[in-house]
Amino acid sequence: MIKSVVIIGAGNLATQLALALTPKGIKVKQVFSRTLDPARELAQKVNACFTNELSCLMTNADLYIISVKDSAIQEVLQKLSLNKNCLIVHTAGSISMEVLSHYTNNYGVFYPLQTFSKSREVNFSEIPICIEANNSSSLLKLQELAETLSSSVQKVDSDQRKTLHLAAVFVNNFVNHLYVIGSEILQHKKLGFNLLKPLILETAHKVEALHPMEAQTGPARRNDQAVISDQLKMLQPYPEYQKIYNFMTNSIYPIYQKPNNDLL
Amino acid sequence: MIKSVVIIGAGNLATQLALALTPKGIKVKQVFSRTLDPARELAQKVNACFTNELSCLMTNADLYIISVKDSAIQEVLQKLSLNKNCLIVHTAGSISMEVLSHYTNNYGVFYPLQTFSKSREVNFSEIPICIEANNSSSLLKLQELAETLSSSVQKVDSDQRKTLHLAAVFVNNFVNHLYVIGSEILQHKKLGFNLLKPLILETAHKVEALHPMEAQTGPARRNDQAVISDQLKMLQPYPEYQKIYNFMTNSIYPIYQKPNNDLL
Repeated sequence: MIKSVVIIGAGNLATQLALALTPKGIKVKQVFSRTLDPARELAQKVNACFTNELSCLMTNADLYIISVKDSAIQEVLQKLSLNKNCLIVHTAGSISMEVLSHYTNNYGVFYPLQTFSKSREVNFSEIPICIEANNSSSLLKLQELAETLSSSVQKVDSDQRKTLHLAAVFVNNFVNHLYVIGSEILQHKKLGFNLLKPLILETAHKVEALHPMEAQTGPARRNDQAVISDQLKMLQPYPEYQKIYNFMTNSIYPIYQKPNNDLL
Repeated sequence: MIKSVVIIGAGNLATQLALALTPKGIKVKQVFSRTLDPARELAQKVNACFTNELSCLMTNADLYIISVKDSAIQEVLQKLSLNKNCLIVHTAGSISMEVLSHYTNNYGVFYPLQTFSKSREVNFSEIPICIEANNSSSLLKLQELAETLSSSVQKVDSDQRKTLHLAAVFVNNFVNHLYVIGSEILQHKKLGFNLLKPLILETAHKVEALHPMEAQTGPARRNDQAVISDQLKMLQPYPEYQKIYNFMTNSIYPIYQKPNNDLL
């Protein structure tokens, strides 16, 4: 069983993971970060040691969690000098598990499908945690660890995980960017973003119960050309948002015009 | 004070409005719809009369609510034969209040900023209801009516309302379409949409507390070209979604690369 971890990284996910593991009795022994300040900041929150030298990592942890940006994973791995039987995982959606295979005999992935920010604590209990490992004993350890945090632990291979990450980019990153655009459009007319919050929440809650195709409303779904052309005119000061409007509208309305749409 | 209404329309908004007004003691006297079935269906829910003839509208209601699709409003108005002092409102985001001016001396707009579906009951109490009227006594009546439903009643002119509707299209219609895309991407790999639900909810709840620019995460924000080019490749079977991915990514990353971004 995993009782202690070293966390390599001090970003959004590393932070929330450390904060979630600690109250479950999993000891975060040490936090590494390339620069010392973020490592210290996180380490203090969970009463851990910290370092900015990979050669100074403690060697006796049950699990090493690499939670750095994707492009830094290789560099971290090359500088690790751990025992070849250490259990090492990364937390990246789009990186294959096999990048770890040269560095240890026990490796895997621990990927919580959620958006994390340093300043916003999240409740892990319903977050799908996608796990993968190169052997059954490692998988079991990761499963036990994941189950201490969440009731939704999923065995997912690297290919499926990449698909999940891609879908997550659409339903989180791009969705959030649409919030940014909405906020900007209102700001230019001195209207507060607060007015949109009940709509934003209902939009998300609605697809808990309805398939998103059933939940779709609005001028594009109705193919209401008068409103669409009016709104495109209003977007003239924002040529980029006008393009997004056009693209999304043209992507939406054909779906709902089909007379024999299976899903509706 | 408004104690009785006639609802012209039996669509998503008309339905939810009738269902919300009734328990507040506002009597829905009659429901009109172009075809009889939807009118009957809604009328039965709120114990009202129903008709598919505009010439058969009851003449003694305190308020007439036109809640039909935008392109049908003019046609409805031309066929109305009501007393010139009747209070008439429409519920459309993008239609000017003044379209009503030829038909009565008392008119306005009653626009709840929310997404409505027939099958999903909504809680009106926090929905911003945007009202506008051509004179102060009508405005007062609409305000009282709106306040029986919601604690967020906003006086909003037609220009501001159009801006709100435009922003709503981004944060609801387009967001929901991204859910459709996410669901489709997972379906092709036999992964369930349920896996995305905690992420979808957190994405919406996050901007209750953080400005959406602070909430942004992901490969586009980090300008992580390796992941971006990988994900574009994965989207080759969906050329349209590939274009949306490209557009959104190119719209996101420049915002977060600016060294002196005011908002961050």
